[in-house]
Amino acid sequence: MEKSPETEHPVKAFGWAATDSSSPLAPFYFSRRATGDEDVQFKVLYCGICHSDLHYIKNEWGFSQYPLVPGHEIVGEVTEVGKKVQNFKVGDKVGVGCMVGSCRSCESCADDLENYCSKNIPTYSGHYSDGSLTYGGYSDIMVANEHFVVRIPENMPLDSAAPLLCAGITTYSPLRYYGLDKPGMHIGIVGLGGLGHVAVKFAKAFGVKVTVISTSPNKKEEALAHLGADSFLISKDEDQMQGATGRMDGILDTVPAGHPLMPLIGLLKPHGKLIMVGAPDKPLELPVFPLLAGRKMVAGSGIGGMKEMQEMMDFAAKHNIKADIELIPIEYVNTAMERLLRADIKYRFVIDVANTINQS
Amino acid sequence: MEKSPETEHPVKAFGWAATDSSSPLAPFYFSRRATGDEDVQFKVLYCGICHSDLHYIKNEWGFSQYPLVPGHEIVGEVTEVGKKVQNFKVGDKVGVGCMVGSCRSCESCADDLENYCSKNIPTYSGHYSDGSLTYGGYSDIMVANEHFVVRIPENMPLDSAAPLLCAGITTYSPLRYYGLDKPGMHIGIVGLGGLGHVAVKFAKAFGVKVTVISTSPNKKEEALAHLGADSFLISKDEDQMQGATGRMDGILDTVPAGHPLMPLIGLLKPHGKLIMVGAPDKPLELPVFPLLAGRKMVAGSGIGGMKEMQEMMDFAAKHNIKADIELIPIEYVNTAMERLLRADIKYRFVIDVANTINQS
Repeated sequence: MEKSPETEHPVKAFGWAATDSSSPLAPFYFSRRATGDEDVQFKVLYCGICHSDLHYIKNEWGFSQYPLVPGHEIVGEVTEVGKKVQNFKVGDKVGVGCMVGSCRSCESCADDLENYCSKNIPTYSGHYSDGSLTYGGYSDIMVANEHFVVRIPENMPLDSAAPLLCAGITTYSPLRYYGLDKPGMHIGIVGLGGLGHVAVKFAKAFGVKVTVISTSPNKKEEALAHLGADSFLISKDEDQMQGATGRMDGILDTVPAGHPLMPLIGLLKPHGKLIMVGAPDKPLELPVFPLLAGRKMVAGSGIGGMKEMQEMMDFAAKHNIKADIELIPIEYVNTAMERLLRADIKYRFVIDVANTINQS
Repeated sequence: MEKSPETEHPVKAFGWAATDSSSPLAPFYFSRRATGDEDVQFKVLYCGICHSDLHYIKNEWGFSQYPLVPGHEIVGEVTEVGKKVQNFKVGDKVGVGCMVGSCRSCESCADDLENYCSKNIPTYSGHYSDGSLTYGGYSDIMVANEHFVVRIPENMPLDSAAPLLCAGITTYSPLRYYGLDKPGMHIGIVGLGGLGHVAVKFAKAFGVKVTVISTSPNKKEEALAHLGADSFLISKDEDQMQGATGRMDGILDTVPAGHPLMPLIGLLKPHGKLIMVGAPDKPLELPVFPLLAGRKMVAGSGIGGMKEMQEMMDFAAKHNIKADIELIPIEYVNTAMERLLRADIKYRFVIDVANTINQS
């Protein structure tokens, strides 16, 4: 007998899934593996909604696997640990981000950069080593190898900690790796969405001067008064952009759609760094001469390794950094996706999983 | 009376110049300034022909100033020094590269990176602080502030040292700055022209494994047997390129024309660096997703600072690195330009200035 998602593993699970690229999310019964020796099983309490969930649901990147239970900003409470688990016990508050496995033997894995392992396993719409599909955090229960589990520090609110597991690490990691974390530096953050708003918070905690760069003039007040940015530039205002030429040590560009890079490169000082963390699906136009003339770079970064993930979470707890969220019941998820599509959210939806996803 | 190039300065000079964007180079009388307190005056012996000379002559970048005496790979023998000159004396062998001045007070200048000073003065087709035009090395005599003069080490052949003043520093500097100079690393060099062939020599001297990437299969023998590269890839051969996926720590791209970046980014390991030193006049297509997935960068570099210039020249002397040249009389220069345009040169034309450019 061929096994269905409901029967392939022994642990009953319940969540919301997309069954194909055109259907909305709907209730879905499936199963999870028994807690292995190195596994941590936990009851999911909260799960953030990342823009990539939407891309996956609609198969916009072309590699979605259905049935698809989204969610890679998962926070919960440990219910069971395998006998070899060293770092977690029942009752601990934990999180799982964008990946649940990697080869553990390549150079990237050896360097604590499992995120760049070519065999890393995404938290949903990927395949475990046994070939079965991975299912994400829009579900009542989760299980993962402890290496891919993060401890949520005591003082962190669990709901607003969830988005840090993707949006947080995606912005924290490049600011650190590319050295844009030195007090007194001046950096730009392009786009003030789920990623951008936590990037501003991390950068300010590093002691960096932050300019938010956005197409929307109405985000100025919010950026300055609420998020603590130092200044604001409207990217479509040529005079404003021209006036800020050559001022920034680096720019973190969170915009996942096509946009011109030339004006951003112009804002950089010599040796400045434009770091992309959003993934437009089409190539962007890269003017080469300005890169040569100022020894500038355009670089990318994707999430972060597990060691850095814990470091980021501990740093966030220490500096009281959390995502600004709107907590929703799972029944609202399809409406939330529509709002997300028109950027009608400040700044991250988080699903109240424990209270609204129940098998019984 | 308005001063002409022949009369504006007291020192008579003679060279070859373009008088507009459509004329070939022709004999040209002009003048140079008297040797100032910090100046070094020298008799030009050799001058390399850089591809940008051709762009300038034809005003292909739109900012050429005529009359235009090209040449920024200039080697000669000191004939006079100003009274405050500290590092040079009459009879010394010296060189001048792509710049003859900078502001000397900005952050770039303070960091020995005069090449990134926004006020740096190009060796030709620029303006001195007194407003007069700068004239390059296709001429019998040269004068420059000693800060912008390089010492040519004793054992360097003067003719094949000339191209190092542009092609050499343009490739040496990024290999150093971007850390692609560590023994055991594997780097790619794209394009085997004036820049590419010295890049291979520097990289081999650093102890780096070098793969030459070229569109021309007939350069393979030359790259491996003559220049000492370790391997060769034909960039248009998809199978070859695919087979080399993810192998390189960095790539130095010397191609000054439009070409696809995606296959090159694919050759890089995670965290690999694609460094552009050629300047295509139109933007290139930049695929963003591969940058994110492998934390890769596309960056630029333009020549180098004066301190690094001397370091490069001393390193070249120590490791017996010189450009492969074809020495020509000035009368051949317009033919040489035509051959350069079709890449019919291994690898750099150098003008025998002392023997063929004479006022008398």
